[in-house]
Amino acid sequence: MAYEDSLSLQDRGGAHLSNRAAEPNKAVVRHILDSVKAEGRTSLTAPEGKLVCDAYGIAVPKEGLATDAREAAQIASQMGFPVVLKIVSPEILHKTEAGGVLVGLKDAAEVERGFATIMDNAKRYNASANLHGVQVQQMIGGGQEVIIGAVTDPSFGKLVAFGLGGVLVEVLKDITFRLAPATLDDASSMLDSIAAADILKGVRGGEAVDRDALATLIQNVSQLVADFPEISELDLNPVFASKNGAIAADVRIVLDFAPPAPRYRPSQQDIVRQMNRIMRPDRVAVIGASAEDGKIGNSVMKNLINGGYKGEILPIHPKADEILGRKAYRSVLDVPGDIDVAVFAIPAKFVAAALTEVGKKKIPGAVLIPSGFAETGNVEGQEEIVRIAREYDIRLMGPNIYGFYYTPKNLCATFCTPYDVQGKAALSSQSGGIGMAIIGFSRSAKMGVSAIVGLGNKSDIDEDDLLTFFEQDEHTEIIAQHCEDLKDGRAFAQAAARVSKKKPVVVLKAGRTSLGARAASSHTGALAGNDRIYEDVFKQCGVIRARSLRDLLEFARGIPKLPTPQGENVVIITGAGGSGVLLSDACVDNGLSLMTMPADLDAAFRKFIPPFGAAGNPVDITGGEPPTTYANTIRLGLEDPRIHSIILGYWHTIITPPMVFAKLVIEVKEEMKAKGIEKPIVASLAGDVQVEEAAEYLYQHGVPAYAYSTEIPVAVLGAKYKWARGAGRI
Amino acid sequence: MAYEDSLSLQDRGGAHLSNRAAEPNKAVVRHILDSVKAEGRTSLTAPEGKLVCDAYGIAVPKEGLATDAREAAQIASQMGFPVVLKIVSPEILHKTEAGGVLVGLKDAAEVERGFATIMDNAKRYNASANLHGVQVQQMIGGGQEVIIGAVTDPSFGKLVAFGLGGVLVEVLKDITFRLAPATLDDASSMLDSIAAADILKGVRGGEAVDRDALATLIQNVSQLVADFPEISELDLNPVFASKNGAIAADVRIVLDFAPPAPRYRPSQQDIVRQMNRIMRPDRVAVIGASAEDGKIGNSVMKNLINGGYKGEILPIHPKADEILGRKAYRSVLDVPGDIDVAVFAIPAKFVAAALTEVGKKKIPGAVLIPSGFAETGNVEGQEEIVRIAREYDIRLMGPNIYGFYYTPKNLCATFCTPYDVQGKAALSSQSGGIGMAIIGFSRSAKMGVSAIVGLGNKSDIDEDDLLTFFEQDEHTEIIAQHCEDLKDGRAFAQAAARVSKKKPVVVLKAGRTSLGARAASSHTGALAGNDRIYEDVFKQCGVIRARSLRDLLEFARGIPKLPTPQGENVVIITGAGGSGVLLSDACVDNGLSLMTMPADLDAAFRKFIPPFGAAGNPVDITGGEPPTTYANTIRLGLEDPRIHSIILGYWHTIITPPMVFAKLVIEVKEEMKAKGIEKPIVASLAGDVQVEEAAEYLYQHGVPAYAYSTEIPVAVLGAKYKWARGAGRI
Repeated sequence: MAYEDSLSLQDRGGAHLSNRAAEPNKAVVRHILDSVKAEGRTSLTAPEGKLVCDAYGIAVPKEGLATDAREAAQIASQMGFPVVLKIVSPEILHKTEAGGVLVGLKDAAEVERGFATIMDNAKRYNASANLHGVQVQQMIGGGQEVIIGAVTDPSFGKLVAFGLGGVLVEVLKDITFRLAPATLDDASSMLDSIAAADILKGVRGGEAVDRDALATLIQNVSQLVADFPEISELDLNPVFASKNGAIAADVRIVLDFAPPAPRYRPSQQDIVRQMNRIMRPDRVAVIGASAEDGKIGNSVMKNLINGGYKGEILPIHPKADEILGRKAYRSVLDVPGDIDVAVFAIPAKFVAAALTEVGKKKIPGAVLIPSGFAETGNVEGQEEIVRIAREYDIRLMGPNIYGFYYTPKNLCATFCTPYDVQGKAALSSQSGGIGMAIIGFSRSAKMGVSAIVGLGNKSDIDEDDLLTFFEQDEHTEIIAQHCEDLKDGRAFAQAAARVSKKKPVVVLKAGRTSLGARAASSHTGALAGNDRIYEDVFKQCGVIRARSLRDLLEFARGIPKLPTPQGENVVIITGAGGSGVLLSDACVDNGLSLMTMPADLDAAFRKFIPPFGAAGNPVDITGGEPPTTYANTIRLGLEDPRIHSIILGYWHTIITPPMVFAKLVIEVKEEMKAKGIEKPIVASLAGDVQVEEAAEYLYQHGVPAYAYSTEIPVAVLGAKYKWARGAGRI
Repeated sequence: MAYEDSLSLQDRGGAHLSNRAAEPNKAVVRHILDSVKAEGRTSLTAPEGKLVCDAYGIAVPKEGLATDAREAAQIASQMGFPVVLKIVSPEILHKTEAGGVLVGLKDAAEVERGFATIMDNAKRYNASANLHGVQVQQMIGGGQEVIIGAVTDPSFGKLVAFGLGGVLVEVLKDITFRLAPATLDDASSMLDSIAAADILKGVRGGEAVDRDALATLIQNVSQLVADFPEISELDLNPVFASKNGAIAADVRIVLDFAPPAPRYRPSQQDIVRQMNRIMRPDRVAVIGASAEDGKIGNSVMKNLINGGYKGEILPIHPKADEILGRKAYRSVLDVPGDIDVAVFAIPAKFVAAALTEVGKKKIPGAVLIPSGFAETGNVEGQEEIVRIAREYDIRLMGPNIYGFYYTPKNLCATFCTPYDVQGKAALSSQSGGIGMAIIGFSRSAKMGVSAIVGLGNKSDIDEDDLLTFFEQDEHTEIIAQHCEDLKDGRAFAQAAARVSKKKPVVVLKAGRTSLGARAASSHTGALAGNDRIYEDVFKQCGVIRARSLRDLLEFARGIPKLPTPQGENVVIITGAGGSGVLLSDACVDNGLSLMTMPADLDAAFRKFIPPFGAAGNPVDITGGEPPTTYANTIRLGLEDPRIHSIILGYWHTIITPPMVFAKLVIEVKEEMKAKGIEKPIVASLAGDVQVEEAAEYLYQHGVPAYAYSTEIPVAVLGAKYKWARGAGRI
């Protein structure tokens, strides 16, 4: 049978460029994939690909399979010229390379000759290939060439991809990804997420494409790969998009019938139940507790005791009866009553046996400080403890970690220094060094934290478990995570999409660049993902991405200080015109919109500033002004409901010294707060060293403020906005 | 006469795709431009454009002018089909829009019909246009379409531009600029400076273009516009570049016979002579000196005295006989002997009269602190003082500035706080606020400076004057400048290209973004340039561009600490694998090359680190190591001549505490220095707050080190490399 698609053509009728959002025909696809599997193949032929597309409302050209030259000419005459001829052979994937493609054939004679040429070429290319014949395809073109595809990422699973064709994808890598299945909104957002997005809107007289048709096509592709996990790769390349719709000129589908086993993933309820006992325990066992200075088990005991933990500390030691004034036990099995968490401070080789006892004791969590597992090549050792954990339903934190802090319970389950400044930021790190940097920065910047957690090898507990715990932790208002890989990016994305609606989630993904990724690989054996995928998925899930360690820390510190902005209008009020320019630059860099100042508001500001002060936004109050000018303009900025956020640029003068400025800002802020007005305010302070004290005062009173920097305060405000937008708050 | 270019065709012979680097024929171009000017036109016709191209070895297609249809057919038959027809009319610049272009005409009959069509269209488009006839042009194509052009920037003057055609330039703005005339090296570098550079090298079977031909064409265009300043715009669009050469399919040349008057520019010798007296004076007059607290003239006097200036201070006051213990004068004219510089601390309205006296006294420089000039709209007032300055050959600093500091002479000619930490960095700012931030940061970070200078309105002295002064100032090793505009970008570029070969030049260009540029405009009335032009010109001149205020300050602080690297091989040595990943990311972000570790060197490092330490680069010594491991690996890194720079990642542990680490680093560094080995070392410190003290110790001993940041130390090293490359040191 040659002309396979008469049915689907009928379906599409004349409007062959439209993509249906209608119910897909899963049975057709199931049948095709099963046949392919039965035949031991891992890719679809073009006609099979076409049927799959038809079943999911993905528009493709008319086509038919010809097994001889005359039949080819006949099919071509039926669909109308010009046509394209392509070899059909399961063994020939790269058809062009094989000389298996001819385009633009204009009449029956050309098609007959073309058939012969292609068959000859194919035989020469691969003498043992099964040649099913030649596909005759309606030749389409015009409009904009785009690429739509799907890939299977080891961490994130199915992703749909979109880009413009040709050089833009190949040389500039201008392509964007979303988790599949994508919503129509997700799909639409892809059209705006490429650098060359304007092309789709029509440039230099070119017509805008049918965005709905294109988005629907993307959505349908994403649904297809989500419905059929064995589709490991899919390429529609090119797709011709025009004002009339979008049609895929070529389809390539690759299958993988042996996907990797999914990572262990408890239910959300189970995560919360177990994580609550681990993170806020009433009774903590320390396995390997020691009275001897310099031992990790000694540091852990001291940190628990000196940190002020009010729960019960249960030292476990093979011989001691008492450690640091606490009764010691030979094994957790000897301890009467329930234990919430066991902190391990014993060498790697003893972990498995002790973990089994933890399991028998029904302790829901183990904090595995010891190193000597996968990170040193001991993969079996790590697999063994994971097996034990699954057998006894123990959640594992680590191994190879510094432990964790949970300040609401004064809990320092770590061998590092104690940390006790309570606050609203929950931080975690995959690496111990970064964990120590978090602790040092937090202490130095007086940043209160609710928790600091080391994740290390992430044999079990990972970022999404923490997200799920902190989501319901009343002491946490922002979650900031450093990671080198995501063991289960899909689970992370699902948790992050949910949690980020409630609390900001900031992530520093290390190994961003190919060099960094190589270092990540040597460090943890983690497979580094394509950074663009992380970029897009984070955005899709409302995750704020930190570009540097300092950004991660500053965002964690600053975001909770700021109220949620009620709209996009940002106004800069500055005493230094030069700061105004740099602050404006920073607004653009951080995706903030400087409000176009309405005439009445401009006039209102002008009343307070000297006649030579600059109009508009930034409001340049000029350098020599007294405190009242700052106060009046800031008050106006807070009072006017059209303004949603304020960036202050302070210039150190004798007339308005740093601390005078800082205090007046807080006074005006409190005055407005009493009236129910709260808006984000950040400040950049230019001046002599006294501005450092002023910045600290401002920060402690709810205004993230920085000396000698115009970019950091704006970056913090920008991060708050990113969150507010992602969470649908503005 | 129809077929105008027989001569030039003979010249080019068969190799019509080659661009001559030979001597241009200026007389031909001069003649054409003079004719155009005499006719009152401001653009060239296509035939004129072709002759200009011929004169400068810019390959263009064969062509001829036809005044009737038969002539058109005859010319076309001579050059061979296919041909392009284009209307020739001085009044019709946008020929396509006018329906004045037909392409791909295949025989004489088509050409005859085409001629008629075009003439009809042109008449309809503009009934009053002079129609000279139709240009018949050899139709070229194939290869890669590129655009080569030239523009006249208000600040930088003539610039040559290069980009790929179509969407890449129009939507992605993927275009690069160089100052004209460009060297062949400059021109070649343009081919690599666009994002889509790989296309020119051939992708997916496409052939690489003839880079020499393309670069020569760019160079010739740049020479043409440099030789003839009245050429304000030039477009070769498209140029077809292939492996056989590069040929411009269309030429458009626009003229401007009334260019703006050039800015005053003294000779280099004069700049040095006058700036030396201004910046390192022996006798300073303070016009408006005051004994009254709170007056600017009082602050200036106190700062001069309390700052420890050893030269003579000469207060000028209309009535006082003595101010702060110094004999006062009514006017500078009353002071016996020469005066080197006059600092103005009087209101704007008195400046002109006092400046005239300064001129009569032959004082070579005036430091104009007062505001109230162009920045408040008083443009005439500013023009007046500039006129006086030119009349008496006085160089003006400001107006509207805080003054300046020159620490080698303990000179604080400013109303701000005194500053006395001597060092090697010379900083300047256009804005007073940024100047204050420089002072505060410098004091806080213990960054010694040679000078801090306010430039304000830049009525005269600007960045290039400072570059020329600091170039020969033995106390300055690095020059860091904040600017919002460059009044004379061309002069800046020339000075920077020269100075940056000797001393690093770092520039923070504010108003980078369109929002920032708007703020810059409201602040100083400066015209904001296209940021890409600044980017490219800075690079062409070896200027290191700072992206933020903090970067400017950190680069100024860190770059002079580092010896010049002798090569590109960077090695990371880290105790924290996590820091290694982030440091690697930062290397990519900052254009640094992580050395591929040779097997023998890898083995040598492995001898010092635990068996599970990671191989390669980063060298991951792992977290629990004693000081000797750091010392051994750092020593090896310094000793091996294949390694050129070292980045350290420290992880705070009890075994190697922060200060122990800091001291061992400096010990090893000094040990190697004694052997004549000096390499750049930077450090990132992760740990509790004690790492801050260690970072400061390291910094004071020549190792730029940062707590809680992996990105800043690498950015500083990257900036040093940018300089070293630009200056030809590596």
